[in-house]
Amino acid sequence: MELLEQRILQNGQVRPGNILKVDSFLNHQLDIELLDAIGAEFYRLFGDAGVTRILTIEASGIAIACMAARYFKVPVVFAKKAKSKNIDGAVYISSVHSYTYGRDYDITLAARFLSKDDRVLILDDFLANGKAVNGLLDICAQAGAAVAGIGICIEKGFQPGGDALRAAGYRLESLAIVDSMSDDSLTFRAQ
Amino acid sequence: MELLEQRILQNGQVRPGNILKVDSFLNHQLDIELLDAIGAEFYRLFGDAGVTRILTIEASGIAIACMAARYFKVPVVFAKKAKSKNIDGAVYISSVHSYTYGRDYDITLAARFLSKDDRVLILDDFLANGKAVNGLLDICAQAGAAVAGIGICIEKGFQPGGDALRAAGYRLESLAIVDSMSDDSLTFRAQ
Repeated sequence: MELLEQRILQNGQVRPGNILKVDSFLNHQLDIELLDAIGAEFYRLFGDAGVTRILTIEASGIAIACMAARYFKVPVVFAKKAKSKNIDGAVYISSVHSYTYGRDYDITLAARFLSKDDRVLILDDFLANGKAVNGLLDICAQAGAAVAGIGICIEKGFQPGGDALRAAGYRLESLAIVDSMSDDSLTFRAQ
Repeated sequence: MELLEQRILQNGQVRPGNILKVDSFLNHQLDIELLDAIGAEFYRLFGDAGVTRILTIEASGIAIACMAARYFKVPVVFAKKAKSKNIDGAVYISSVHSYTYGRDYDITLAARFLSKDDRVLILDDFLANGKAVNGLLDICAQAGAAVAGIGICIEKGFQPGGDALRAAGYRLESLAIVDSMSDDSLTFRAQ
């Protein structure tokens, strides 16, 4: 997606530890016009997939999922990163490893918001090692829901998450794939 | 807001400890059509206020802020509940007490996303004791930003947060104010 790639080149910042900071437009300050265009692009890519629910994970994914859901006209459900006092009843839980924080955390979704009748579009801002997406896939499996597709804003193509998901047969669409990055250059995979 | 009140009556659930669960449409599963109407209503209420940025707090506030921001055509910034490794540079930090979890937590915003030139609309899903909103107001004060208004989806009118903000002179608009609730009844303040 040309618009997103241009924005990454313009405002993204590379930090030690393979961190690509895009917090001025994607996950701390949110450029709503860009997010709306991203939502429209996901609809162009997955509008034919019979999606009944969009699944994401708090917090950054929520903005992307909401803007996309306007086009799909389906509900968003988001997995929570800590078991909330306010979640009662049956829940799906999956353990996710965070490389950023060097620890595991549980993600939780109330079971009544996802069922075997659903066709799920998983959306998130980043895909690197794929741990968060795998946690969301695990939740879909627990629910017996079909995975219609996985949509990612920025995939780090030099980390293994994306290739593993493609090899497993998932319909994965990443709007920008960064194949290499350093302090003074950033290369996107041609798509 | 009639549409929101009706939805609370239809799908809200009262739980011990003054908890009003609205997780089937507002803060776990998200009804995007309702959120879009909420965004439009906030724009009707604050469209004249010269808003330059919408400020909220992760996670539930993000959906509401994004849907409203489409109408205001301004960026969203959201305070994070833990200092992220990915936040560097100067930050605004405020300590917030959570009654739900019985502890204090810090909220953090990168300083470059809010300045004295901003007129801020603070949006959130709930207002009860007002601790989260006060943390966001503190961040606005640290930035020297003007507070154009505070928009809340559901105010618990029997808790002191809303009245204290009104007494302090803030322009506060709550789309639904619950004046009393019990297992079998829920009363809204006439607006």
